[in-house]
Amino acid sequence: MRSALYTGGPTFAVVDGEARPPGPGEVRIDVAYTGICGTDLHIRHGAMDQRVRMPAVIGHEMAGRIADVGQGVSGWSVGDPVTVVPLEWCGHCPACRAGHNHICHNLNFVGIDSPGSLQSSWTVPARLLARLPPGLPLQRAALVEPTAVAVHDVRRAGIVAGETVVVVGGGPIGLLVARVAATDGADVLVFELDARRRAVAQRLGLSVVDPSVEDASSVVAEWTSGAGAAVAFEVSGSAAGVGMATDVLATRGRLVMVAIHSVPREVDLFRVFWRELSIIGARVYEREDVERAISLVARDVVPADLLITRVVPIGRVNEALDALEQGGEVKVLVDCQSVGDG
Amino acid sequence: MRSALYTGGPTFAVVDGEARPPGPGEVRIDVAYTGICGTDLHIRHGAMDQRVRMPAVIGHEMAGRIADVGQGVSGWSVGDPVTVVPLEWCGHCPACRAGHNHICHNLNFVGIDSPGSLQSSWTVPARLLARLPPGLPLQRAALVEPTAVAVHDVRRAGIVAGETVVVVGGGPIGLLVARVAATDGADVLVFELDARRRAVAQRLGLSVVDPSVEDASSVVAEWTSGAGAAVAFEVSGSAAGVGMATDVLATRGRLVMVAIHSVPREVDLFRVFWRELSIIGARVYEREDVERAISLVARDVVPADLLITRVVPIGRVNEALDALEQGGEVKVLVDCQSVGDG
Repeated sequence: MRSALYTGGPTFAVVDGEARPPGPGEVRIDVAYTGICGTDLHIRHGAMDQRVRMPAVIGHEMAGRIADVGQGVSGWSVGDPVTVVPLEWCGHCPACRAGHNHICHNLNFVGIDSPGSLQSSWTVPARLLARLPPGLPLQRAALVEPTAVAVHDVRRAGIVAGETVVVVGGGPIGLLVARVAATDGADVLVFELDARRRAVAQRLGLSVVDPSVEDASSVVAEWTSGAGAAVAFEVSGSAAGVGMATDVLATRGRLVMVAIHSVPREVDLFRVFWRELSIIGARVYEREDVERAISLVARDVVPADLLITRVVPIGRVNEALDALEQGGEVKVLVDCQSVGDG
Repeated sequence: MRSALYTGGPTFAVVDGEARPPGPGEVRIDVAYTGICGTDLHIRHGAMDQRVRMPAVIGHEMAGRIADVGQGVSGWSVGDPVTVVPLEWCGHCPACRAGHNHICHNLNFVGIDSPGSLQSSWTVPARLLARLPPGLPLQRAALVEPTAVAVHDVRRAGIVAGETVVVVGGGPIGLLVARVAATDGADVLVFELDARRRAVAQRLGLSVVDPSVEDASSVVAEWTSGAGAAVAFEVSGSAAGVGMATDVLATRGRLVMVAIHSVPREVDLFRVFWRELSIIGARVYEREDVERAISLVARDVVPADLLITRVVPIGRVNEALDALEQGGEVKVLVDCQSVGDG
């Protein structure tokens, strides 16, 4: 088997070794594809060294097939197409007791806090599996995890059909949020600075604006006859994005904070008060979000093929990381079964 | 009749003049008491000169009796005890059309944007009246308006009996929020720096902490067995208060923004994401909040006599303003019928 390893520097090592057989309650998966996430890039540059145990196999957006089944595992067979829901909770902290185990105080995020899927063979607890439809290509199925994020974000917003929705930031999650919101009947407008991402948004059937050219507030005011948008998703992670998402909202508008802001941001709390806005945090997903994401990807409501802009063999994993960092890509996948470098 | 006038400087003029008879649809009220609000102090120091037309009669927390009834007014008689709901909306803006006319885009806040109640005789549209119970002393009834603010804030929080609630800032609104939340079955803790306000909080039966002596997060962590509070109300208007209110919340906690923050504040959006918090703006009140406020004040659930720490005759209105600014007071009322200076 082959693994990509983060060893503390930006260049991942690719090593060959022995697959770990599944223990009781575990399965071994032949990983087909792993998507690269913004979090993986943060890890690459040392921002999460306090959580990652080196040498680390990271990666948490994947699809594959069961290759081996451990003792005591029922309901799963060799060859089953699966994805992994990479959340392990403690079950006894205040968040778990309150029914929010997806944001458990002691959450083990598999692929960050424990080994992930940037390897050809991955052994995980069977309780983390989610079943994929037999006919769904595994390349497309690698988008289930980020789609589950988007489904959760949209659910947190409580979107009603016909509402106006602004998505600030048209990266992979932003575009998925936009597609899911549109599927729920929202009228969606995406703000994105990058021309290639704007082009992908258009191919997805989304209306898209370059906020460096057009004034976000004016565009939304005109679009909504002066009311403002009912919902905004902040997916850019930038200070400017927070300002834009706050400014465009209507009375009682909801701002869903999707992006991770590692530093405190200035927020116009006067406007929050004046328009009775709500700012809603959203993190990962729950089981029902994953199930819906599988359905949306399988029905091609989320057109994965349009979102996947590059597929790189695991032997050239650093090329995948570089490509995503250089901008312009939407979703970059690593082909974890490719044995060569080409 | 006697009026207190803001003329652009911090010293209000007190002038005697003729009462304006009520026109069609109007009533003239003999104002008994007017409470001084933080907004009135902002006006005194010129912060709202773009909204106030000088010389201005301000004031919007009041109780009085109808002294004269204009043509076409039905259901109201001379002698009826009343308060005024000081909101006039346009009825056709996006906020009004969405059913949120209390935060109309073109709201006329009576007492700021048009003449208010710091006068012995006040003529207003009858549609703004709310009826007071006959037995309710008018001094206590002057607290209906700030109580309606608190009722609205608590309603925006969606408090469920048994929830833990932190109130950051124990001024008049903070203490009213705390009392209303406690009435709804919440377990309430108030954070307040001022010793006299802490003493009033204790007399109201509230638990209170000085956050300059005890660490807010540690106190709440211990109080809630590590979970954090379900709800926090930011009523301090300070940057530190925003930080404290964010830090103390449990998973899925709700932070209600009550105070007016005239400058953008740094907000820990990482924590909003991490714990899936909601930040909820709350502004003024709706009719149902006013009705409930009247009931709470009348039943002494809001113990007005404990909150009113000073009553000053209108001839010495500047003394009332000074006293509130100097700190330590909770609610300061102006006796608008007092003819002398004593």
